[in-house]
Amino acid sequence: MKKNTKCPLRKSLRRILLYRGSLLQLQALGVKRVYSYTLGKETGISAEQVRKDFSEYQIKGNQRGGYHVDKLIHEMENIFYRNGSQNIIIVGRGNIGSSLANYDNFIQRQINIVATFDIDPSKQRIRSEIPVYQMDRMKEIIDRFSVKTAIIAVPYLAAQKVCDILIDYGINGIINFAPVILKVPDEVIMNNVNLSDEIESVIYCVSLTKEECPE
Amino acid sequence: MKKNTKCPLRKSLRRILLYRGSLLQLQALGVKRVYSYTLGKETGISAEQVRKDFSEYQIKGNQRGGYHVDKLIHEMENIFYRNGSQNIIIVGRGNIGSSLANYDNFIQRQINIVATFDIDPSKQRIRSEIPVYQMDRMKEIIDRFSVKTAIIAVPYLAAQKVCDILIDYGINGIINFAPVILKVPDEVIMNNVNLSDEIESVIYCVSLTKEECPE
Repeated sequence: MKKNTKCPLRKSLRRILLYRGSLLQLQALGVKRVYSYTLGKETGISAEQVRKDFSEYQIKGNQRGGYHVDKLIHEMENIFYRNGSQNIIIVGRGNIGSSLANYDNFIQRQINIVATFDIDPSKQRIRSEIPVYQMDRMKEIIDRFSVKTAIIAVPYLAAQKVCDILIDYGINGIINFAPVILKVPDEVIMNNVNLSDEIESVIYCVSLTKEECPE
Repeated sequence: MKKNTKCPLRKSLRRILLYRGSLLQLQALGVKRVYSYTLGKETGISAEQVRKDFSEYQIKGNQRGGYHVDKLIHEMENIFYRNGSQNIIIVGRGNIGSSLANYDNFIQRQINIVATFDIDPSKQRIRSEIPVYQMDRMKEIIDRFSVKTAIIAVPYLAAQKVCDILIDYGINGIINFAPVILKVPDEVIMNNVNLSDEIESVIYCVSLTKEECPE
């Protein structure tokens, strides 16, 4: 989560997604009820913050004697899936684009990848459930499937150009996996996911000695 | 960046990584000098915060008439690469694991993927520069290459078990791509990267009407 994070709900939203992840794990273990401090402990967030976030998103989950796990999950799903499944596209069918196109976790989250695009015509021969189209069909597909959100997974030199085209075609939410900071208008929601940064920050912390790492 | 983020430097560190990304872009454009407010504008961070972060990491970059872009980058590289390139392993050679193994951006960042592991013996036939080993060779490889950091890219049901084994073998930094919150001892640095959450949070914000989205 870096710059251009225009939606001010984003931070609390990320926590709600984290609570849901934890609740799904608890549900799988057969847990029926949780307290805010249990959920806080599981997610590394204070119990007070958990209650505050629930209040912000009007999540009730029946509080007497702890929240009902099933009800909480149901209420959270209602927040995320109120508009049904969302059609999205991926631009770039290289390593990252392909792995996202084949990522089976998306289906249960109602994330529906309708198409991928690549400048390389040989990519259209890839055998996959998710089709690979040439770039010049992008506008048509975006319109046909009412796509509002797109993933950019092209080399960094091409990323800004692709981003500009997507916005021009009516996309207003972008998840960018290219290792470059993209410029977008204020009204566009941008999430830059830099995989190298995710790894480097861990490597750096691991390399710190106890003396260097402030408590 | 979610729970178990034990290294208190992490937030500022993420910003340093962001500044570096922006500086590399400016350098490629031929820019020689920047002011803290330029860098702040590029990264969506206040100029004051930029200066505070530089001071925390003792980054000087020669301040008269703006910072020297080259010097700033050099000083940041010294922070990240003071211990030379870092050997890391990937457990799970599915879609995500393979795309990370083939991600060419890592090399220039001195992230050196020495091996990948998979429970499926057929994966060992994958043609790739990065070898795929059976799980029982993990301890040997970790010791031989002094690996301290590992990436988990296995299905979510296997993730906690893999995580426990890695820690047992001396790994103390983990980047987890499995969609599950993993439990680790306090001294282990954990970064949970949930790709579905990254996408869902954008989809949710895009779905909000102007009235629902507080300024």
